[in-house]
Amino acid sequence: MPKRPVSACAAGLAALVASLSAAPALALQTAAPSALDLALHGEDPAWSITADLTTEIGPRPAGTEREAAARRWAVARLKAMGFANVREETYDMRTWVRGEEKAWLTAPFLPQSLAITALGNSGSTGAAGFEGDVVYFAGFDALQAAPDAAVKGKIVFIDNQMKPTQDGSGYGYYGRGRFQGPNVAAKKGARAIVIRSIGTDNHRNPHAGVTNFDDGVKPIPAGAISNPDADLLVGQLRRIEAGAAAPVPLRMKLLLTPRDLGQQKSGNVIAEVPGSDTHASPVILACHLDSWDLATGAIDDAAGCGIITAAARHVMTAGQPRRTIRLLWAGAEEVGAFGGQAYFDAHGKERHAVALESDFGADRIWRVDFGLPDSAKPLADRIAAALAPLGVTRGRDRAGGGADIGALVAAGVPAIDLQQDGTRYFDWHHTPDDTLDKVDPVQLRQNVAVWTATVASLANSSDTELP
Amino acid sequence: MPKRPVSACAAGLAALVASLSAAPALALQTAAPSALDLALHGEDPAWSITADLTTEIGPRPAGTEREAAARRWAVARLKAMGFANVREETYDMRTWVRGEEKAWLTAPFLPQSLAITALGNSGSTGAAGFEGDVVYFAGFDALQAAPDAAVKGKIVFIDNQMKPTQDGSGYGYYGRGRFQGPNVAAKKGARAIVIRSIGTDNHRNPHAGVTNFDDGVKPIPAGAISNPDADLLVGQLRRIEAGAAAPVPLRMKLLLTPRDLGQQKSGNVIAEVPGSDTHASPVILACHLDSWDLATGAIDDAAGCGIITAAARHVMTAGQPRRTIRLLWAGAEEVGAFGGQAYFDAHGKERHAVALESDFGADRIWRVDFGLPDSAKPLADRIAAALAPLGVTRGRDRAGGGADIGALVAAGVPAIDLQQDGTRYFDWHHTPDDTLDKVDPVQLRQNVAVWTATVASLANSSDTELP
Repeated sequence: MPKRPVSACAAGLAALVASLSAAPALALQTAAPSALDLALHGEDPAWSITADLTTEIGPRPAGTEREAAARRWAVARLKAMGFANVREETYDMRTWVRGEEKAWLTAPFLPQSLAITALGNSGSTGAAGFEGDVVYFAGFDALQAAPDAAVKGKIVFIDNQMKPTQDGSGYGYYGRGRFQGPNVAAKKGARAIVIRSIGTDNHRNPHAGVTNFDDGVKPIPAGAISNPDADLLVGQLRRIEAGAAAPVPLRMKLLLTPRDLGQQKSGNVIAEVPGSDTHASPVILACHLDSWDLATGAIDDAAGCGIITAAARHVMTAGQPRRTIRLLWAGAEEVGAFGGQAYFDAHGKERHAVALESDFGADRIWRVDFGLPDSAKPLADRIAAALAPLGVTRGRDRAGGGADIGALVAAGVPAIDLQQDGTRYFDWHHTPDDTLDKVDPVQLRQNVAVWTATVASLANSSDTELP
Repeated sequence: MPKRPVSACAAGLAALVASLSAAPALALQTAAPSALDLALHGEDPAWSITADLTTEIGPRPAGTEREAAARRWAVARLKAMGFANVREETYDMRTWVRGEEKAWLTAPFLPQSLAITALGNSGSTGAAGFEGDVVYFAGFDALQAAPDAAVKGKIVFIDNQMKPTQDGSGYGYYGRGRFQGPNVAAKKGARAIVIRSIGTDNHRNPHAGVTNFDDGVKPIPAGAISNPDADLLVGQLRRIEAGAAAPVPLRMKLLLTPRDLGQQKSGNVIAEVPGSDTHASPVILACHLDSWDLATGAIDDAAGCGIITAAARHVMTAGQPRRTIRLLWAGAEEVGAFGGQAYFDAHGKERHAVALESDFGADRIWRVDFGLPDSAKPLADRIAAALAPLGVTRGRDRAGGGADIGALVAAGVPAIDLQQDGTRYFDWHHTPDDTLDKVDPVQLRQNVAVWTATVASLANSSDTELP
């Protein structure tokens, strides 16, 4: 498949992986390969899971028949790969689906069409759509500070441009425009809200994502336009201010017709590598199987499921671990981590040794953060030492886990974060561009190698180290 | 406006332009600035024309009211900039407009939606669309070699992946799938044709562009899907071949409803810098004002109009040239260079000293090619010497001009090609992504400086050098 030119960084990584592969390749002839050997130069189940799931199933919106089809696909694949106790655990959840979505800047310049997508839980404009005056806010804070009178009856626009960072740290700050902006705008009486996409790219692909309205607040139509479309909107506003057009408000026509389907079925898929010590608590590895509907969900999060499953498979192939490794392919993460909550509701009272999640793309792991009990210091040291040759530095942050293991970690389960390079992630996150071609097989292999080394250590850790 | 990180190449260019700017900046205090001085550190009309045209008018499809609005905008802007003899010259042309456009891979896997756009002059599927079997061809040559029986009644797919080159030289070869593929498929009895976009990117934005059917061949529906969508299609085909699904044909549903509006008005906009020698033949600088309809046409070709106009303006400001400089903002280039032909029909018998066109984006000029009479060797040497400090090498190809001056050059008018760097051009060409943010102001300034130095030489050349 066509690939963009590989970056210098990725080329260096390829050399690193190649150098690490050389010695074990010889070792293979005399001894059973280690799990890491398998990850570095064996089959690549992370790639094949990502490629097959995105090609054969594609978009997997939470609560829909497509997500159910993905669960059936996952069960079949995990069984075929030799995992044990493969099963679906379903639950019901309120389900929102996209309808038509169009927008235009209509005046005072010639009408121009905007690339827009509705935010999850957006209200509907009705089939006829409506037109209104645009009121500009530079960011979420400006909207929050505005008097209701400045917002009432208007189409709110929030303009905040996220920039790429390796650790993805801008998402929380800039993301407030999406997470909270619609709720705040609705409370102030706005007719609708349109935000600059929470994304770092410059393509005509808007970034979807969920928003939430407080109980009792009627959802207003809420959408995101692409960065170039936001630039256009700002350019027109500046020209109006500069007198290039009559001093009239910028007008937008909006058509968003999402629907609430009420309670629908969603579910988790669970699979295990049974440990040799049936009394030992399991290691939980999580990803999410659902995706947004605009693309095939390759980096979010087919690759995550591929990565954790490949790591577990390599450990299993190298020899039965002491602890059970449990894979959680969670449902309905995108719309509020319903799958993770359902897992916790069903299993939260069981013992868990440690939980990890892969849900930040398919690029290389660059740092490891620990959230382990003090008793696990030797274990953390072993893992850090094992990962250093793979180019992973030891971080100082306390590991927080991911959305699908959030309830477990909040309840005290230890966690490790294998930090993925997020520099490119928010170029594609929740857009039509989240497709297989964005996965770099060289970076993916390093990622799986890091996971494999980590899981091998965890699954063979002692009961004095982990609960 | 948000910008992507500037490349090392562009950063080096910025340093070059800065170094060239330093000395003339001092000279300004004692002598009138040269045209090149103005281009290097004066106002940047190329940027403002590109920004204003894309923001205030946007898409400008040939033969439509939007193109007419763009002509009115152009006349007003060119008059305001001080050009003389500013006028529209209109003509009638057959006009094709886009309708609905959707496609899905429907079987044997779960249905997946494809990002598709109709090719110019495509036929319609009718409002209901239709579904058919896909027949695969690796490239145009494979389609041409196929027996009619392999194609008849099918939806032809042509899969050829264009790669970036600095001189854009892949376009002619890979472009045959678009230029000729639909005509060949129609003659063989295909029901429709879908091609992999003629583009070098990996975004979910299909590349539009014109195709032509021979007289007497009924146009079939013809569309381009984005590169990631083409990857998906190929991925599904490979899985069918490998036995992952039943050995059945890949099915596609297609809905394309473009319409032919018959004869509509289009037109050129012409403006001049009058020369001091009324007997001298003029220098023609061309761009095109129309654009495809999916975006604002920033790189294709608002920037080209900005570049030639900035160069003419800088030469005019520095002092009246000997020859008249005539700007041709041509209409209807995208659908067959109707504006260039109309100019030739009206003015082809007049004398023209030389013709140049800017229609390959807004990136730096890296090479100059000449197509001048032998008498102009000293002139070519002067231009090559003037451009070398701007980072432009002298090429050995014979200049061929561009589409809008094609008829003039074919009739013997001398030409110069200022070759723009096309490495990024086919990432955005004819897609929804051809927007202002793709224009790099640093590269644009170098481009205008090169044009300005060239036009200053040409407009003051002698009658022994140019006809």
